[in-house]
Amino acid sequence: MNGIKARQIVLASRPKGEPRLTDFRLQIVPLPPCPLGGLLLRGLYLSLDPYMRGRMDDRKSYARPVAVGEVMPGETVSEVLESDHPAYAAGDIVLAKTGWTTHATSDGAGLRKLDPALGPITTALGVLGMPGFTAYAGLNLIGKPKPGETVVVAAASGPVGSLVGQLARLAGARTVGIAGGADKCRYVLEDLKFNAAVDHRALNFTEQLHAACPDGIDVYFENVGGAVWQAVLPLLNTFARVPVCGLIAQYSRAPTDGPDLLPATLRAILTKSLTLRGFINHEFAEQHYPAFLKAVSQGLTDGSIVYREDVYDGLENATKAFIGMLRGENFGKVLVRLLPAV
Amino acid sequence: MNGIKARQIVLASRPKGEPRLTDFRLQIVPLPPCPLGGLLLRGLYLSLDPYMRGRMDDRKSYARPVAVGEVMPGETVSEVLESDHPAYAAGDIVLAKTGWTTHATSDGAGLRKLDPALGPITTALGVLGMPGFTAYAGLNLIGKPKPGETVVVAAASGPVGSLVGQLARLAGARTVGIAGGADKCRYVLEDLKFNAAVDHRALNFTEQLHAACPDGIDVYFENVGGAVWQAVLPLLNTFARVPVCGLIAQYSRAPTDGPDLLPATLRAILTKSLTLRGFINHEFAEQHYPAFLKAVSQGLTDGSIVYREDVYDGLENATKAFIGMLRGENFGKVLVRLLPAV
Repeated sequence: MNGIKARQIVLASRPKGEPRLTDFRLQIVPLPPCPLGGLLLRGLYLSLDPYMRGRMDDRKSYARPVAVGEVMPGETVSEVLESDHPAYAAGDIVLAKTGWTTHATSDGAGLRKLDPALGPITTALGVLGMPGFTAYAGLNLIGKPKPGETVVVAAASGPVGSLVGQLARLAGARTVGIAGGADKCRYVLEDLKFNAAVDHRALNFTEQLHAACPDGIDVYFENVGGAVWQAVLPLLNTFARVPVCGLIAQYSRAPTDGPDLLPATLRAILTKSLTLRGFINHEFAEQHYPAFLKAVSQGLTDGSIVYREDVYDGLENATKAFIGMLRGENFGKVLVRLLPAV
Repeated sequence: MNGIKARQIVLASRPKGEPRLTDFRLQIVPLPPCPLGGLLLRGLYLSLDPYMRGRMDDRKSYARPVAVGEVMPGETVSEVLESDHPAYAAGDIVLAKTGWTTHATSDGAGLRKLDPALGPITTALGVLGMPGFTAYAGLNLIGKPKPGETVVVAAASGPVGSLVGQLARLAGARTVGIAGGADKCRYVLEDLKFNAAVDHRALNFTEQLHAACPDGIDVYFENVGGAVWQAVLPLLNTFARVPVCGLIAQYSRAPTDGPDLLPATLRAILTKSLTLRGFINHEFAEQHYPAFLKAVSQGLTDGSIVYREDVYDGLENATKAFIGMLRGENFGKVLVRLLPAV
């Protein structure tokens, strides 16, 4: 044995609605020895993402649910502590799907070596990682904004929305960001350089959104659902495209009694010739990841693309950070720095 | 004056829910003389189509609402009685948007001359007309079925659904038709040669549909909405395509109290990477009409495509036929033969 204790957060119980702290449990387990042909990994940063909420429910989706008692899933940037794998050496920095844990063993499947010279390693979990590619793929391969068109995105200060807006601006579109609160709206306008920012917490949110979109909406990048969708729907133009990337507003919501809002959405799809297209980023990864990396790292280098990270210290704080993210308390990409075990 | 009296059916009042006979009114008006540079037309056949129900409501859609007191809109096959227009002569048979009327004047805009040698003139309102092209465009340009995939269409015995199924079969797909009642299901199986027919009036409709789609659904051609959509939703495969062409089940329905079925539909779009795409046939007409005419007339000639018409005699019966069509009482394409005025 290597004497290392791994700290892990497991699903303690399936949440009903919004997750509570008690739906998670910290456990400390001895780290097994390095597997034959495999690796021992030490997590440096854990990425927290809205999709994880969906995995906590026991229902069919694109990924299987987390079992009660199982380590919460997730991507980390990790350091190779020990390697019996020909492609990796101790000290390598890798992207790994190790989950909410400080240490893990790996057979090498699904690992990707990072070149720390390319930029801060945390970007592999954000603007140059899955959230960034999600923004790129949804906007460019489904939304396809034309110069002068209006692109609207919610959670505009977050890791996906912020890149959607910046890429749309670089493509010549008029960009409108929806965010929660004055601070985020200011960031969306000043740092991310959207043409307009609308606060979804404002009492007259619907009117404000209307005013911010005088020519209607041609692309709505959907990552929220709920009330924002209801406000967007009447503004969508004929032939508008709606990449559906997430529905954070309904992840924790029980089925509602009504009124039934489906007929109005279907009617809009029909009468306005809308395209709604759900997608998971890896559908497009093989074909489009290189172009994404090139475009966005270019934008980071020349300063036309900026990003922001909210880093929480310590695995013990992952749960609180995750619940806060689902409530929209985060500002940028949510990361947990996995401090060395005490 | 020419002494001709035109009989017309006008919108008498906006229906609430299902239209009633009293929402329509027959009026008899003198036909004005042939306009300078224009034509006098005598209607031979009037096409009745579900979209007309939407035009009776006073709300925004892709076409403006019919005004109360205005002649109900619609396409006819008409004969030119008199022409001062260089492109048409008395006796020509034309496709015209003259509406629910036995006679009309025209300035020639939007007319299309028919060649009666190509086939029965009624097909210009059905399998070789707008309903046929709607089926062709939605299936081939949005649905894009691959050989071996499962294509499901509702109102499968009707003018759009019947061609969707036949074109999908010719493209190598497995076809499942939904229809109301044993007679229609038999027609769908025996004449239209679908692989399976499911009666949406059956108590165990959902189970039957499930059994008819052992490999799920890859293309669902949506022209109904309502309960059929709810039965289809769980069967849709990842990457399924849903051309949304009509929503006849909700045209006459008041907004319902609930439950709210929208979150489940949005969730399916997201987790199954679905494409929902509304469309109106004329979006594709310029580019694809010639290929459609060629493909379908070829199918009619070699017998691989069949069609069926329900012809009602007399403009006075249009209202009853229309209400019946919205209830699903028709079998094939609904036409009204416009008998000469008495």
